[in-house]
Amino acid sequence: MKVQAAHEPVRAALEREGARSLGRVEQVDVYFDAPHRDFAARDEALRLREETDAEGTTTALTYKGPKVDDTSKTRQEFETTVGSRGEMQAALSALGFEPAATVEKTRERFELDGIVVSLDTVSGLGEFVEAEAEATEADIEATREAVAAVLSRLDLDPEAQIRRSYLGLLLDD
Amino acid sequence: MKVQAAHEPVRAALEREGARSLGRVEQVDVYFDAPHRDFAARDEALRLREETDAEGTTTALTYKGPKVDDTSKTRQEFETTVGSRGEMQAALSALGFEPAATVEKTRERFELDGIVVSLDTVSGLGEFVEAEAEATEADIEATREAVAAVLSRLDLDPEAQIRRSYLGLLLDD
Repeated sequence: MKVQAAHEPVRAALEREGARSLGRVEQVDVYFDAPHRDFAARDEALRLREETDAEGTTTALTYKGPKVDDTSKTRQEFETTVGSRGEMQAALSALGFEPAATVEKTRERFELDGIVVSLDTVSGLGEFVEAEAEATEADIEATREAVAAVLSRLDLDPEAQIRRSYLGLLLDD
Repeated sequence: MKVQAAHEPVRAALEREGARSLGRVEQVDVYFDAPHRDFAARDEALRLREETDAEGTTTALTYKGPKVDDTSKTRQEFETTVGSRGEMQAALSALGFEPAATVEKTRERFELDGIVVSLDTVSGLGEFVEAEAEATEADIEATREAVAAVLSRLDLDPEAQIRRSYLGLLLDD
């Protein structure tokens, strides 16, 4: 779940609630178009993410399937690290998958009650707060409630959630 | 360049010529079909390789483009390691790329004059010797000649080269 919110009051609330800092990362996401499908129409995405933190830079490839319910942003995801961003992007291009958009953000992560809360500053969009957790098919509803509860503890309104991705928001501009 | 040949005499020739052993690996290659192209007709391939040697197991994804000349097996290749074979295969499957065939082999590698010579034992096909080197577009012909020369030094006939891949040979059976 993601809401648009200025970070300073949320930072104070995270401290008050005893959240644990997980550090800060820069992420550059390249989203690809498919040669044989309309990813946007099918609510799918293929992303190559370069992430830089205090430890260094890593790259991951992620496939995101369509949302599995109407109330949260839960999706089926498959993700793996890749050793070479350049070779992966060249292979995708040779297969007909072309870069469609790039999303750059700084993400500061915290952990509260097993939920990961991210303070995201997105180039061209501004400040957002995202709360997320991994769910199995059986506990999607319970997980969704736990995530909403954490947003409420941070004085944020789960009802104000933005279901669009940063990519979608950027493409709307 | 690849020829079908019993390994024992080649092993003796490699020792005589002073080749350097590079060790032994087991490779399990899964080749994928594309949802939007006939890879076989276009002479392309997408392969997920699990390789196990004395150091452990690694996985790599490789895209192979069509052969760039008629006399060697030179292709454009893009390759990267991937952290999780399972996630990569699941992502490919979600994108419509399905496993088409599996090739299992044991490969014993040697180096001679900068050329890598592999003694390959392929499940279902038998023993082969492959000599290969990396080439830029400018030196493809010179590299091809150097590779052929190494085969000749090992008492193998470069003219007997098999241009089909193990995958192609297996699918013919």
